[in-house]
Amino acid sequence: MPDGADNVALIALLHGPDKPGLVAATSGWIYERGGNIVHADQHRDDEGNAFFQRIEWIPGVDADLDSKRREFESFAESLGMNVSIVRTDKRKRIALFVSKIEHCFLDLLARWKMAEFQCDIACILSNHENLKADADFHGIPFYYIPVTPENKPQAEAQQLEILTGHQVDLAVMARYMQVLSKDFLDRCGIPVINIHHSFLPAFAGAKPYHQAYQRGVKLIGATAHYATAILDDGPIIQQDVSPVTHRQTVRDLIRKGRDLEKSVLAQAVRCHLEHRVLVYGNKTVVFD
Amino acid sequence: MPDGADNVALIALLHGPDKPGLVAATSGWIYERGGNIVHADQHRDDEGNAFFQRIEWIPGVDADLDSKRREFESFAESLGMNVSIVRTDKRKRIALFVSKIEHCFLDLLARWKMAEFQCDIACILSNHENLKADADFHGIPFYYIPVTPENKPQAEAQQLEILTGHQVDLAVMARYMQVLSKDFLDRCGIPVINIHHSFLPAFAGAKPYHQAYQRGVKLIGATAHYATAILDDGPIIQQDVSPVTHRQTVRDLIRKGRDLEKSVLAQAVRCHLEHRVLVYGNKTVVFD
Amino acid sequence: MPDGADNVALIALLHGPDKPGLVAATSGWIYERGGNIVHADQHRDDEGNAFFQRIEWIPGVDADLDSKRREFESFAESLGMNVSIVRTDKRKRIALFVSKIEHCFLDLLARWKMAEFQCDIACILSNHENLKADADFHGIPFYYIPVTPENKPQAEAQQLEILTGHQVDLAVMARYMQVLSKDFLDRCGIPVINIHHSFLPAFAGAKPYHQAYQRGVKLIGATAHYATAILDDGPIIQQDVSPVTHRQTVRDLIRKGRDLEKSVLAQAVRCHLEHRVLVYGNKTVVFD
Amino acid sequence: MPDGADNVALIALLHGPDKPGLVAATSGWIYERGGNIVHADQHRDDEGNAFFQRIEWIPGVDADLDSKRREFESFAESLGMNVSIVRTDKRKRIALFVSKIEHCFLDLLARWKMAEFQCDIACILSNHENLKADADFHGIPFYYIPVTPENKPQAEAQQLEILTGHQVDLAVMARYMQVLSKDFLDRCGIPVINIHHSFLPAFAGAKPYHQAYQRGVKLIGATAHYATAILDDGPIIQQDVSPVTHRQTVRDLIRKGRDLEKSVLAQAVRCHLEHRVLVYGNKTVVFD
Repeated sequence: MPDGADNVALIALLHGPDKPGLVAATSGWIYERGGNIVHADQHRDDEGNAFFQRIEWIPGVDADLDSKRREFESFAESLGMNVSIVRTDKRKRIALFVSKIEHCFLDLLARWKMAEFQCDIACILSNHENLKADADFHGIPFYYIPVTPENKPQAEAQQLEILTGHQVDLAVMARYMQVLSKDFLDRCGIPVINIHHSFLPAFAGAKPYHQAYQRGVKLIGATAHYATAILDDGPIIQQDVSPVTHRQTVRDLIRKGRDLEKSVLAQAVRCHLEHRVLVYGNKTVVFD
Repeated sequence: MPDGADNVALIALLHGPDKPGLVAATSGWIYERGGNIVHADQHRDDEGNAFFQRIEWIPGVDADLDSKRREFESFAESLGMNVSIVRTDKRKRIALFVSKIEHCFLDLLARWKMAEFQCDIACILSNHENLKADADFHGIPFYYIPVTPENKPQAEAQQLEILTGHQVDLAVMARYMQVLSKDFLDRCGIPVINIHHSFLPAFAGAKPYHQAYQRGVKLIGATAHYATAILDDGPIIQQDVSPVTHRQTVRDLIRKGRDLEKSVLAQAVRCHLEHRVLVYGNKTVVFD
Repeated sequence: MPDGADNVALIALLHGPDKPGLVAATSGWIYERGGNIVHADQHRDDEGNAFFQRIEWIPGVDADLDSKRREFESFAESLGMNVSIVRTDKRKRIALFVSKIEHCFLDLLARWKMAEFQCDIACILSNHENLKADADFHGIPFYYIPVTPENKPQAEAQQLEILTGHQVDLAVMARYMQVLSKDFLDRCGIPVINIHHSFLPAFAGAKPYHQAYQRGVKLIGATAHYATAILDDGPIIQQDVSPVTHRQTVRDLIRKGRDLEKSVLAQAVRCHLEHRVLVYGNKTVVFD
Repeated sequence: MPDGADNVALIALLHGPDKPGLVAATSGWIYERGGNIVHADQHRDDEGNAFFQRIEWIPGVDADLDSKRREFESFAESLGMNVSIVRTDKRKRIALFVSKIEHCFLDLLARWKMAEFQCDIACILSNHENLKADADFHGIPFYYIPVTPENKPQAEAQQLEILTGHQVDLAVMARYMQVLSKDFLDRCGIPVINIHHSFLPAFAGAKPYHQAYQRGVKLIGATAHYATAILDDGPIIQQDVSPVTHRQTVRDLIRKGRDLEKSVLAQAVRCHLEHRVLVYGNKTVVFD
C-alpha cells in the first residue's frame, strides 16, 4: 500500500487571522491521529495580525494520505485558515520557458539531473531553436514557438495548450525574453516564476545591467519572483547581489550577473517545489 | 502587580530526546493555561535524535510569572527535557573584560546605549588603564587588574570576586588579550563569550591575521564562541568573513577584521541576551 | 625640514581623455625626478574613452612637496588631465552633521579615536541637543542649530559660517535627518557625504525600511553617496546589503540596517580621506 | 597577417625584487615601441620587497607578436624580473579530471559552451564511466581510467600520456575524488587546479562537510587552489563561504556547498585562463 509508505509525508501551508492556540491546535490534531511532525515552522505578522505555518508530518502507519489530507484541510478551514497541502511522493511537473540565453536553462537541467529538484521537467517552450539539442539530449519534449507582436495571442494559446497537455504544475521563465500577457497568466492557472536580473525594485524593465552601469551602483543583483500582470512587480521569492567596481564593464556585469541569476532562480524553484513558499498580498513567506 | 504586566513574557529553551507529540505537548500546556505563544521555534537533530525548542509566551492575565516558570519547568522535565527559562523583564547583568584595544568595547557600549541590548553593564575589568575614561563617561565601574604570569591566580581571584559582587550573569571578552584559566571558568559559574579574530577552526591561537596573511587566504573571519578550557575551541555562536586580496597588508587585515569582530561579537551577545542560544555538546542551536 | 620627511607622500587623482603613453608619461616623470612610486592604479573607461589614475609617490630626498605638487599639476594638465593632489601629512578637517540617531555618529567617533581615519573632526552640527555630551567628552565643538521649515535659510547660513570658521574640508551627514538645500550645497564649496538607508536607486526618500518591508524584498541595504541638489541621487561611493526574511519586522530591519549604515558610511569616509574617490559625471571611481 | 591583428594583445605577468622606476620602465618600453597598454596593474609586497605586475598591451600595427614577446621577455629579465607572457589569440587547452559527482563538471561545460572561458576542453579523464554521455554530447574525448591502490602508478602513467597527447596546458580537478601523486605533479609539467570543499586551511582532507557539521561552524566554504605534493595545501586562488545554521543537515551542507564549489572553481579557472594569477611562494596574486 504505497499511501502508507513510511517516508511519505504531508506538507501543509496555512495562513489566516492569528488567534491564541493555533500551534497547539494543529500539532495536537496531528499527534492525536498518530502523526509524527517532522518539521513545523510558524510566523506571526504583527502588523497584519496574520498567522503563517508550514507543517510537515508523517501520518501514522496504514494512513490513507489523501483522506488525511482532506481531513486536515477541513480542520484547518474550521480554524479560519487558508490551506494548501501536498504529498511528498507526488512530483511536481514543470515547464521551462527559454529563449536563446542558456545559463539558467542549463543550470536548472543540471540540478534536476542531480536530483536537487523533486520534479519532472515535463516540457520546454522556446521562441528560438538553439536549445533544442540540449532538450533532446535530456529526453525532454521541446516546443519551438516563435513569438512576434503580431502572433502573440496565437503563440500564447499554443503555449497554454502545451501546459495543459503536459499537466504542468509550475512554469519557470528561465531568462525567457518575452513578457507573458495578463491574459495568459489569468488563464494558465499555475504559478509562474520569473528571474529578473536586478535587485528589484531597482532597475525594473529592459536592460537592467545597462541601467545599473549608468547609475554607477556598487552592487548588481537578481530577483526571482512570481510573475503577475505588472512587469517585474510580483511577490519576491529570492534575491541576491554581488559587488561590482568601476573596473567592471557592462559585459562583466552580465557575466557576473549570470551566476546570481542561476543561483537565485534555482533557490526559488527549489523552495517552491518543497512547498516552502506562501504568498500573501504582494509578499512571500519563505519557510527555509 | 508587575508580574502580570501584559507585555512580560517567558522564554523557555528546551532540549532532550525527541519523541512524537512534543510540539503538541508544550504548546497545548501553555494554551490550556491561558498563555499566548508569541514565538515558537523547534528543531530536530536527526543524527542525535534530539529535540530543541525555543518558546516565548505571555502567560494569562494576573499570572504569577515565577510560579508559571516553575510549573513549566516541572512539566518540561516530565517530558524528559532539559529546560532553562527567563523572564523578559529581568535584565541580565554583564561584565566586559577588555585590554587596550577598544573597537569591540566601544561598539558594545554604543549598542547598549542605544538599547540594542537588553542588559545592564555591571562592570568593566581590564588589565590596562587606558579605557577607564570611557567607562567613567558611561558611569560604569571600571576595575584595573594588571595580569602577569606571576600574579595570574590572584588576579583571577580578584576578578571572580568582582563578578560575584556585581551579580554578573554573563562575561564578555571584548578582545581581552588574556586567556582565562580552566580554574576560572570552572569557578565563575556563568557563561563567558569570547571573540576570536579568525574563522575557527582555522587560525586558532595567537596572531590569526598574521597566520591568515602567511597562508594567503582570500577571506578573513571572526568567530564568537563560548569560552571553554581549551583555547578557541568552545561552541561557536556566530561567524562571519570578509574577502581580502593580495593588496591587503596585515595592517589592512587587522583594520577590516575589526568590523567583523564588532558585528560578530555583538550578534552573539544579543542572541545570548535574548535567550536564543542553546548549547549542546560542543555546538550551538541559535534560534534567530 | 618637514617637507622632506621620508614618509610623506603625494597622492594624485587624474582623469581625462585616454591616449597612448599616459602611464609611461606619469610614471616616467616621477621616476626622472627621483620619486618613488608607492602605489599606482589606473583605469580606462572604454565607453567614454576616459583615463583615470591614482598615483602615490614619495618625492626624492630634500624635495619641496608643495613645489613638486605644483609641478606635477602643470605636467598633468599638459597631458589634458584634470588633477587633484594631496599631501599625506595634511590632515583633512571634517564636520559631522547629526540629529538624534547616534549609531553612525558614535561609530565615526570611535574609528577616529582609533586613528582609522586620518582627519581632525573640526566640529559637530546638530538640530538636536542629545549628542552634546558625547561631543564634549571627545573635546569637539558642538553647535546646536534647530531647523524648522521657517528658519531653514538662516540655519543654513549659520551652518555655512561654522564650516568656514573651522576651515572644514569635508562634511559628513551621519544620519542627519534634514535635507541640505541646493543653495547650501552650491555655497559650501566642499564635498558632502550622505548615508541613505537603502540600496539606491531603490527606496529613495523617506522611511526606506518601511518601503522595503512593504515591498517584501529579501535584502536591505545602505548607500553612501555625495550629496547633490537632487535627493538621494548623487554619485554612489559605497553600498552594501544584508539578507532579511519574513521573520524580520520593520524594527528588525532598522536594527540590522544600522550595522550596514555604519560600515558603508565609514568605508566611504575613509576612501574619501585617503584620496581614493574620483567623481566623474554622476559616478565614482573608487581606487580601493 | 594574423599576428598583427588589431585586437590581439600580449599579457605579461612579472615579479621580482622591487626597485624604483619599474612601472616607468615597463610602460615606457611598450610606449616607445608603439604599443598601446590596455590594462596595467601592479602590486608591491612591502614585507618581501617584491614587485608584481600584470600588463596587457596591443603591440603596434604590423608587429610580429612572437618577436615582441621574446623582446619583452629579455627586457623584463634585464630588470631582474621573472616573466611569463601569453598571446590573447592562443586558446589554452585544458583537461578535466572527474569522478562520479557531476556539478562542477556540468557547470564548467556550460560556461565553456557560453564562451565564458577562452579555452578548448581537450579531453576528460575519469575513474568512472557515468559522465561519458555528457562528454560525447559535447564532442569531447572521454578517457575512462579506473584507479585502485594497486594500479595507481599505471593509471597515472596513462593519464600523463593522454595529457601529453592532447597538448594540455592546464588540468582541472572538477571534484576528482582521487589524490594525484607527487610524482604525477612533478612529471605533468602543467598547473593543476583543484577544488576543495572547505574554507582552507580549515577541514583539509576527507569529508570536509562532515567535519564542518561536527565542529558546528556557522559557515561552510570552498577553496580553489593549485595542487601541490601536500594535500589541500597549495597556493589558494579563490575562496568563498555561505552561512549555515543548525537547521542544515550534512546533506544540506553538501547541497549548498555545490553552489560554492561551482562558482569558486569557475572563477579560479577563468582567472588562470586570462593570465591573471601569479604564484609566488605558497601564495597567489590574482589581478582581478
